[in-house]
Amino acid sequence: MRMRLPFKLKPLPIFEWGREYNGHTLTSDLVAAVIVTIMLIPQSLAYALLAGLPPQMGLYASILPLVAYALFGSSKTLAVGPVAVVSLMTAAAVGKLALQGTEEYIVAAIALAFLSGLMLLVMGLLRLGFIANFLSHPVISGFITASGIIIATSQLKHILGIDAHGHSLFELAQSIIAHLGDVNWPTLVIGVTATAFLFWVRKGLKPLLQSFGLGERLADIVAKTGPVFAVALTSLAAFGLGLGGQGVALVGDVPQGLPGLQVPTLSLDLIFSLAGSAALISIIGFVESVSVAQTLAAKRRQRIDPDQELVGLGASNVASAIGGGYPVTGGFARSVVNFDAGAETPAAGAYTAVGIALATLFLTPLLFFLPKATLAATIIVAVMSLVDFSILKRTWNYSKADFVAVTTTMVVTLIWGVELGVTTGVVTSIAIHLYKTSRPHSAIVGLVEGTEHFRNIDRHAVTTHPEVLSLRVDESLYFANARFLEDSVYDLVADNKQLKHVVLMCPAVNAIDTSALESLEAINERLDALGVKLHLSEVKGPVMDKLKRTDFLDHMSGDVFLSQYQAICALAPGTCAQTAKANGAAH
Amino acid sequence: MRMRLPFKLKPLPIFEWGREYNGHTLTSDLVAAVIVTIMLIPQSLAYALLAGLPPQMGLYASILPLVAYALFGSSKTLAVGPVAVVSLMTAAAVGKLALQGTEEYIVAAIALAFLSGLMLLVMGLLRLGFIANFLSHPVISGFITASGIIIATSQLKHILGIDAHGHSLFELAQSIIAHLGDVNWPTLVIGVTATAFLFWVRKGLKPLLQSFGLGERLADIVAKTGPVFAVALTSLAAFGLGLGGQGVALVGDVPQGLPGLQVPTLSLDLIFSLAGSAALISIIGFVESVSVAQTLAAKRRQRIDPDQELVGLGASNVASAIGGGYPVTGGFARSVVNFDAGAETPAAGAYTAVGIALATLFLTPLLFFLPKATLAATIIVAVMSLVDFSILKRTWNYSKADFVAVTTTMVVTLIWGVELGVTTGVVTSIAIHLYKTSRPHSAIVGLVEGTEHFRNIDRHAVTTHPEVLSLRVDESLYFANARFLEDSVYDLVADNKQLKHVVLMCPAVNAIDTSALESLEAINERLDALGVKLHLSEVKGPVMDKLKRTDFLDHMSGDVFLSQYQAICALAPGTCAQTAKANGAAH
Repeated sequence: MRMRLPFKLKPLPIFEWGREYNGHTLTSDLVAAVIVTIMLIPQSLAYALLAGLPPQMGLYASILPLVAYALFGSSKTLAVGPVAVVSLMTAAAVGKLALQGTEEYIVAAIALAFLSGLMLLVMGLLRLGFIANFLSHPVISGFITASGIIIATSQLKHILGIDAHGHSLFELAQSIIAHLGDVNWPTLVIGVTATAFLFWVRKGLKPLLQSFGLGERLADIVAKTGPVFAVALTSLAAFGLGLGGQGVALVGDVPQGLPGLQVPTLSLDLIFSLAGSAALISIIGFVESVSVAQTLAAKRRQRIDPDQELVGLGASNVASAIGGGYPVTGGFARSVVNFDAGAETPAAGAYTAVGIALATLFLTPLLFFLPKATLAATIIVAVMSLVDFSILKRTWNYSKADFVAVTTTMVVTLIWGVELGVTTGVVTSIAIHLYKTSRPHSAIVGLVEGTEHFRNIDRHAVTTHPEVLSLRVDESLYFANARFLEDSVYDLVADNKQLKHVVLMCPAVNAIDTSALESLEAINERLDALGVKLHLSEVKGPVMDKLKRTDFLDHMSGDVFLSQYQAICALAPGTCAQTAKANGAAH
Repeated sequence: MRMRLPFKLKPLPIFEWGREYNGHTLTSDLVAAVIVTIMLIPQSLAYALLAGLPPQMGLYASILPLVAYALFGSSKTLAVGPVAVVSLMTAAAVGKLALQGTEEYIVAAIALAFLSGLMLLVMGLLRLGFIANFLSHPVISGFITASGIIIATSQLKHILGIDAHGHSLFELAQSIIAHLGDVNWPTLVIGVTATAFLFWVRKGLKPLLQSFGLGERLADIVAKTGPVFAVALTSLAAFGLGLGGQGVALVGDVPQGLPGLQVPTLSLDLIFSLAGSAALISIIGFVESVSVAQTLAAKRRQRIDPDQELVGLGASNVASAIGGGYPVTGGFARSVVNFDAGAETPAAGAYTAVGIALATLFLTPLLFFLPKATLAATIIVAVMSLVDFSILKRTWNYSKADFVAVTTTMVVTLIWGVELGVTTGVVTSIAIHLYKTSRPHSAIVGLVEGTEHFRNIDRHAVTTHPEVLSLRVDESLYFANARFLEDSVYDLVADNKQLKHVVLMCPAVNAIDTSALESLEAINERLDALGVKLHLSEVKGPVMDKLKRTDFLDHMSGDVFLSQYQAICALAPGTCAQTAKANGAAH
């Protein structure tokens, strides 16, 4: 499991599933594609709005990336495209360089997708997927929840029909309050109605459809396409009632047709300004996507290769940039719909891409009358499912260290924005982890009478010998905890003038690095100067192999025992004999 | 051992040893103080020169800090003052802000000592001594060796009597080569002679003195005061031969008397510019000092409290700043001399301070004719003992990961200087450690026939059952390796269609954080969907206590077994019975 080489290129997944492709899988994939297309159109428009980009860019980001993922991804059912959190992060990253609505803003968003795609590809080829593991679950949960709150708040301006800006909750709230006097009432009516309708669709439509005789799965899928109804109904209302004239912001002219393909030109300046953001977006997008893909794959006993996923997502983002889109990743809701609708191979994604392309070619004129408030409602309803405070209670009960990490992440994200939030979360959780392992658990142990077992003297009634100190070390020894072990041993020895032997019992020591080896040498030397011998017991095979490559064992004043019982029998035969007697008596 | 509270103020060490102070300890301390004073005068002057400061600042830095350490430090024999590596780091830090020889340079060096002292005090009061543990032994070794090379090279200009500058080896070498034409021959003669003399003093003086009938310890101590002879002899030569007129750089006028005490005024600007450097100097100085203190304390079965050491060193640096000195820490050579000369309490340090103060008051006129080349020779000979490449071979043989860390540290230090060098070393070693633990060691195990023991199926002939997968996890589970465990389990299960039970054997799992708990929940859920049950065995007490606080065990599809043998007996009775039979047959 440890022997993965970098650059071991595997055949593309498409050569595996492509070989078994037939009429049945084609039908299944086509059905799924139609449903996902219907669901994806309003989502793509809405998330582009969230990212501060023109709506068509959301559509562009839902075409080529799906084809690229179908070719390079390892999940059979993951649906990629614009998603909420990545759109928010795009707005935060690009907003530092240019103003929304300018050409520079669009160029920077495309460049961001390109850069992020290249990073993901390099990470995939170098098999660096493990980097994502340093985002702990609580940090991700806290980050997603805080992002959901910021996203929902950011959409309030569209519901209210006012102007407001800001990347953090504080900035947004301040800006919204400042503009509360400008509320556009027709917009508010549209927005609130659409939001209420969409919430109802989530909860109430499925049972209603079922009561009309629809099967559960079909009812579920139709309910998921609810935003399309909201889009159609509010567009009709805007057209019929002439809401555009009453100050309701409409999507307006969307360029018909597909953009020309082009490889973005990246200036060194732009690369430097975007690199940090691109790295964060890549990792967050990857973590999100892989966890969706794994959840779905496990249901069908399929496998996800995280490094292949990096390549798949990298290719998708590069494709997004080439096709005039912005950063994408695997989305939860659309992947579940794709899965439930029966998609069997990644080809379903490619068919979805065709669907979106057709919509971009022929349906964009219909979007003229679509109120932005409807799109905002779609976003708000979607992200409210991301907001989940239960992680606070969970970590509070289970692990205070994780509670600190999740709270820090949420607070920093809400106050200072997504980028600082996620960075702080990662640094905090690594720091807490290092702190915890820098004080390794260890216990002075004694012999349980009548057995050959040793237990913590603080928890059990055990026998010890005044000349022998048995210290069980419950952690691998490395630089951060080596000195703590040294201190512990010196403290114990300084307190104990009768001592002749120290036995380090190492059943849970999986590794000893150079620093820890030097600490052991120092302990050995200092104990020796005091006339105390150092022994080891229950050293694991691989650790012993490494120690034998050094001269430590030659210099060690004491011996290495296979078991702690053998150690105590050799060093304090009396203790051992007593036990044997007790043992004999018990028989 | 885990229950250290922050801010638990203990009585000062002086109240302990002060109570037992008597005539005998007074005599011992006074003798040691005289010897250390003689040794410290040339060292103090030389290290001030290395730091780019006027020589008297080295003396100032050897007065109040010693008194402060005597009051607050926890080592009985540590001698603080200017040392080579910290002097080099001071030059690197202050050199970024001002030019050597200017008033700003001196002010910044004093501010650096003050800031570093405050940081150490805060770290001590908050019991943050463990931070120093993140400097691994190989990183420190590599850093010290590279620093030694830079220091020795930096002193070549004084030996050659030329002008040269630079904080990294490359800059220095370039500058020295550019000025080689300006060599001052009388200076070179003085410098080379002094260096050769001092090397001979190191190796040859002690045996010579012993052959004259001196005791070994006394011979050793006299040999350590060698630099004083070099100072006296070359000063006499410079005076007698009028070397100053021949272009030999002399120390010249040193202000007589002690500087007024003053609390340095720190502008916010200065604090921001120096904070990073102060933190690095604090930690490097602390690590160096504590390891010296521990080595000496262990020889007399005394104890060092690392957090009290932080307070002691913090107070010393604050005192140094108040007394017009620069950053100080515990020095190896002088502490060993203090120890060998018989110092029994920290009072010896206070007496040394009096000695240095008297020297500053009365002996400074004698320093006028002291050639700088002699001081440079003192430094070169002192730091050559720091240079030790054996760590490269050692780590190459023992741990390639540590080899990478030490090589990186040395190369970056030599090329880009001390600050980037030590920072890179720490980051590299933490990253390597995290990478290693992100792929926890685990093994599929089977039953050793005729026993109740389980061993790795790849290494031993063992019995397994096609419906039961026993996976022993050899590492604590936390966010960085939780996902790897998930992947491993899914891969194993996807390959194995007959499987009914997965048993995670956890004898070496000392902790399970929230992320790992969620991974276990995900594993449980996904296996359950496939009709495979998840079981645990040999879970440690504290880990079990924590799991019981969650609802994981209620949802888990399988059971928790006390031993892996019980698990296999319950899940695959056949395997267990066979073993029992084999066991019976063996009897």
